[in-house]
Amino acid sequence: MVKPHTKNIPISPEIRIGGKDIIFIAGPCAIESYRQARDIAMAMRKAGLHIMRGGAFKPRTSPHTFQGLGKEGLEILRQVADEFGLLVITEALSVEHLPLVMEYADIIQIGSRNMQHFPLLWAVGETEKPVMLKRGFMSTVEEWLLAAKHITTRGNPNIILCERGIRTASDAGSNTLDVNAIALLKETCPYPVIADPSHGTGRSDLVLPAAKAALAAGADGLMVEFHPHPPQALSDKEQAVALEVLPQFVEEMRALAGVLGREIV
Amino acid sequence: MVKPHTKNIPISPEIRIGGKDIIFIAGPCAIESYRQARDIAMAMRKAGLHIMRGGAFKPRTSPHTFQGLGKEGLEILRQVADEFGLLVITEALSVEHLPLVMEYADIIQIGSRNMQHFPLLWAVGETEKPVMLKRGFMSTVEEWLLAAKHITTRGNPNIILCERGIRTASDAGSNTLDVNAIALLKETCPYPVIADPSHGTGRSDLVLPAAKAALAAGADGLMVEFHPHPPQALSDKEQAVALEVLPQFVEEMRALAGVLGREIV
Amino acid sequence: MVKPHTKNIPISPEIRIGGKDIIFIAGPCAIESYRQARDIAMAMRKAGLHIMRGGAFKPRTSPHTFQGLGKEGLEILRQVADEFGLLVITEALSVEHLPLVMEYADIIQIGSRNMQHFPLLWAVGETEKPVMLKRGFMSTVEEWLLAAKHITTRGNPNIILCERGIRTASDAGSNTLDVNAIALLKETCPYPVIADPSHGTGRSDLVLPAAKAALAAGADGLMVEFHPHPPQALSDKEQAVALEVLPQFVEEMRALAGVLGREIV
Amino acid sequence: MVKPHTKNIPISPEIRIGGKDIIFIAGPCAIESYRQARDIAMAMRKAGLHIMRGGAFKPRTSPHTFQGLGKEGLEILRQVADEFGLLVITEALSVEHLPLVMEYADIIQIGSRNMQHFPLLWAVGETEKPVMLKRGFMSTVEEWLLAAKHITTRGNPNIILCERGIRTASDAGSNTLDVNAIALLKETCPYPVIADPSHGTGRSDLVLPAAKAALAAGADGLMVEFHPHPPQALSDKEQAVALEVLPQFVEEMRALAGVLGREIV
Repeated sequence: MVKPHTKNIPISPEIRIGGKDIIFIAGPCAIESYRQARDIAMAMRKAGLHIMRGGAFKPRTSPHTFQGLGKEGLEILRQVADEFGLLVITEALSVEHLPLVMEYADIIQIGSRNMQHFPLLWAVGETEKPVMLKRGFMSTVEEWLLAAKHITTRGNPNIILCERGIRTASDAGSNTLDVNAIALLKETCPYPVIADPSHGTGRSDLVLPAAKAALAAGADGLMVEFHPHPPQALSDKEQAVALEVLPQFVEEMRALAGVLGREIV
Repeated sequence: MVKPHTKNIPISPEIRIGGKDIIFIAGPCAIESYRQARDIAMAMRKAGLHIMRGGAFKPRTSPHTFQGLGKEGLEILRQVADEFGLLVITEALSVEHLPLVMEYADIIQIGSRNMQHFPLLWAVGETEKPVMLKRGFMSTVEEWLLAAKHITTRGNPNIILCERGIRTASDAGSNTLDVNAIALLKETCPYPVIADPSHGTGRSDLVLPAAKAALAAGADGLMVEFHPHPPQALSDKEQAVALEVLPQFVEEMRALAGVLGREIV
Repeated sequence: MVKPHTKNIPISPEIRIGGKDIIFIAGPCAIESYRQARDIAMAMRKAGLHIMRGGAFKPRTSPHTFQGLGKEGLEILRQVADEFGLLVITEALSVEHLPLVMEYADIIQIGSRNMQHFPLLWAVGETEKPVMLKRGFMSTVEEWLLAAKHITTRGNPNIILCERGIRTASDAGSNTLDVNAIALLKETCPYPVIADPSHGTGRSDLVLPAAKAALAAGADGLMVEFHPHPPQALSDKEQAVALEVLPQFVEEMRALAGVLGREIV
Repeated sequence: MVKPHTKNIPISPEIRIGGKDIIFIAGPCAIESYRQARDIAMAMRKAGLHIMRGGAFKPRTSPHTFQGLGKEGLEILRQVADEFGLLVITEALSVEHLPLVMEYADIIQIGSRNMQHFPLLWAVGETEKPVMLKRGFMSTVEEWLLAAKHITTRGNPNIILCERGIRTASDAGSNTLDVNAIALLKETCPYPVIADPSHGTGRSDLVLPAAKAALAAGADGLMVEFHPHPPQALSDKEQAVALEVLPQFVEEMRALAGVLGREIV
C-alpha cells in the first residue's frame, strides 16, 4: 500500500508521482542518436510507460570517455518524447546548464555527484519544476534529506528522491542498492521515492531482481536504463538492459505491483 | 521462479530448503524461558511454519550483556519444537560447543562473526548436518563462498547461505541488507540463500519491507526474530517483531510468494 | 626525503609547493570577522608560516547553519593576509563564484563535495592559478587522479592534491585520514600532496598526531584549522585547534620535518 | 612522548611493551622452513630486535592455499628464537590450539578474524600470558575495546592492541591503516598499541611510510613481515618486505623514534 502521507508531485495533468501508481521511468543512459532514442520511446509507448530518461550532458569520471551530445541530445530527447506522448527527465549538471535543461525537461534530475553541490540545489529551489534528487553514492539518508531541504527552503516543494545504490565493501555489483533506505523513507518522509536499479547494481543481470526488491520495499517508482544494443552503448553498457526485454520486464513489475495494491504507469 | 540449478538441502523427510517452497524460519533472538519459547512455537505452528530458531549461546559484543541460557536454552528449544512438530536451527559458537549443539539442532548455524573461524568450518564440514553459514558483516560474496568451500572440502555439501546485512555508511538501519548479493547468488551459485531481515535492518519497523525485498530479489527463505514482548527482550529488542504481528506478516509473505510462483512453508 | 619527481608548483616568487620545504597552511574554517582573521594571521606570521586558509562561501550540509560571510569574507581574508605578508587559499564553490574568488586567492581550493563537479574542474582548468583538489570523502585514488585530469586536460598543470580523510566504518574520528593514499601518491604520482588532519579526524585532540602521521607518510604539506576560541567557532568547532597552541604545534612539526630531511615553511 | 598512563606489559625480565621503548616485532608471515626462519632471526638479532613473529597455523580465506606447517612451524620458530635470544609471538587459531601454542609462545596473538570469537577470548583470559589482540578488519574501536574486556573480565590484564588496517572504499592498498585509531587509543585507553603496516597496507612498497606514520601517530610498537625472498613467499608475498632491507628499515625507525623521545628495541 502507498503510505497515505506521501506527497503527490504533479508532472503533467495526468501523471503524478507519489500516489497509488508506480512510475516506471525508462530510457538510455545517454542519448546517442535520433534512431536510438526513437526506438526506445516507441517501445516505452507500447508498454504503456510515460516518462523517458536520457542523458545529454554526462558527468563522467574520466575526461577521455563520451561526455554526451549536449544540446543536440536534449533536442532529440524532447522530439522523440513528444512524438510518442512521453514526458522527459534529464540531468542539469550545473547552474549554468539549468536554463537550457529547463526548456526541454519536465523533471530536472540532480545527479549523485551533485547531491551536495549547493549552488545547484539553490538554483532549482528557485524554480517550480519537479526535481529528482539522487542520493550521493556515499551519503547518509540524513545528509540526503538535508540536501532536499536546501531545495525546499528556496521555495520548491516538488521533490522526488531517487535511491541509486551506495558504495560498500560488497562485490555483488558496482554499488549496493539500499532497500533499507527505501523502507525507512516510506516510514518517515513525505517525498516520493524512486529506485534506480541500473546504477544500484551496475550489472544488467541484476537489474530485474533489484527492481523487484525496490518495489517490494515500498518504492514509488523505478528508473531503468535500456539500450537497443547494450554491447554498443557509449556509456554504462554493463548495466543497460536490452530493449527487447522491456515488455517482459514491465509485465513482471505489473504482476508484482498488483500484489502490493499498486499499478505500473 | 526458483532457479532450476539450486541445490535442495533436505532438513527432514518433508522439509527441504532450496526448492519451490520458501522457508520461513522464525523464533526469538535468544531463548529466555520455556514460556517465551512455547508462545512463539505455538504461534508458528498456527501460521503453518516449520523451522524454529533461538539462541542458547549468544556471542555478544559486550561481556556485560546477556550471554544466553546455554545448555538449558537448547533443552527448552528442542522441547517446544517437538511439542509443536517444528524443526530447530541454532548457533554453534565454537568447536567445543559443536557436539552439544548437534544433539539438539536440525540445522547448525554459523554466525556472522564466525564466518572465517576456520576450525569451526572444518568441524561442521566433517558432519552431515545441514549448515546455515551467515555472511560476515563486512565480507565479500567471494570470501563467503570460499568460507563455504572450507566446509564442503571436508565432505559436507549441505550448505545454506544466509545474507544478514553488511556494515555500510548508510544510516538506514544498523546494517544494509544486500539484496544485490541475493540476486547475484541466485544467478551464479548452487546453494539456497536465506535472508535475515532482522539483523539486516536492526529496526523492527523495517523488517517487513526488507523481508519482502529479499523475497522479491530471489531469496529461498527468511529468518525473522519475533518476541512476545519486544521491549522486554533480553537481546536485540530494537529489531524484534511483536509476536502478535506474526500471522499478518506471514500472510503478506504468502501473497508475495504467490506472485513469484512460490509458496511459504 | 622529498621524492625527486614531484612537481614544484609556484605560488609566489618565494613559495613553491612540492619541493624540499613542507608547506604549513593554517587558518580558520570560516572567516568570521576582521578581528578573528587578524589574530590568526598575526600568530601565523610569528610562527614563520606563509599561506592562510579561510572559508568565505561555506558548503554546509544543513541549510540552517552558518554559510559564510561571502564576498565580505574574501575581503577580510585578503586584507589580513596582505597586512602580514601571507598568501591566500580559499574555496571556489561553483563556476559562478570562480571569477570573484580568483580576484582574492593565490590558490583555488576545490572542496571534497565538488571533486567530481566537472564543470568547475573544467573552469579552473582554463585558468593558470594553482588548484588544490581535495579528495572526495569516499572516492578512490583512481577517481581522484581522473578528476585532476579533468583539470589538466584543459590546460592548467598546477595541481596540488589534498587528502582530507575518507568515510569508513571506524569510530576514531568523523573520518579516517588515509595515510596509505599519501604514501601511494608519493610513490606513483607527480603532484604534491597536502594533508588536512582537521577534516581527516574531525576531533581537535587528534589533529596533532594525525598531522605527524601525514608528514611521516610523506606529505608535502599540511592544512590545519585554528580558531582563537574554538568553543565559539561558527563552524567545525569540534575540530578547530586553539590558536594559542599554534606555536607549539609548528615546533613539533619542525622537529619531525628535520628528521625527514625537510623544513616547515 | 609515551603517554604516562599506558600500561607496561612485561614480556620477559628485560622486555616490556608500553613504556618509553618502541617494540619492533619482525618475522615472516608464515614459518616455511628452518632455513627461512633462521635467516630472519639472525638479521633481527644483528639489528637489535627482540621479538619474532611467525605463523604456524594460518587462517586463509581459501581452503586451497598454504595453511601453515602446524606444530612443526611452532618448533622451528621456538628453536631459532632461542638460538638468537629472541622472544616469540604467534597466533592461537582456536581454543583447541591454545594449549599447544602456549608451550611455544611468549605472546599469544588473536587474529583479526577472531577478534569476536568469544570462546577464544575467554580462554586466553584465563591464562596470564600477554595477549596481542588484533583489530577486526571491519570493527570499530568500541567493539575492539569490548573484545579486550571479554579477556580482562576473565582475569588476564596483559593486553596489547594491534591496529592492522580496516576495509574501506580506498584503493591505496588492500586495507587502510587507521592512524586516527592509534591516536585515539593513546589519548583514551591504557593498553599499549602496536601497528601492523604489513596488513595495514598489503603492499610492500607502502610498508615503510605507513610504519613511520604509525609511530608518528603514537604507536608503542610495530609488527612487520619480512621474507628472504618475497616473490617466493608461500603467503602474503605482496606485502613482505625483503629481508635485506631490514637494517635500513630499522635505522629509519630509530631516527624517527628519537625525535619522538623514544627508542626502538
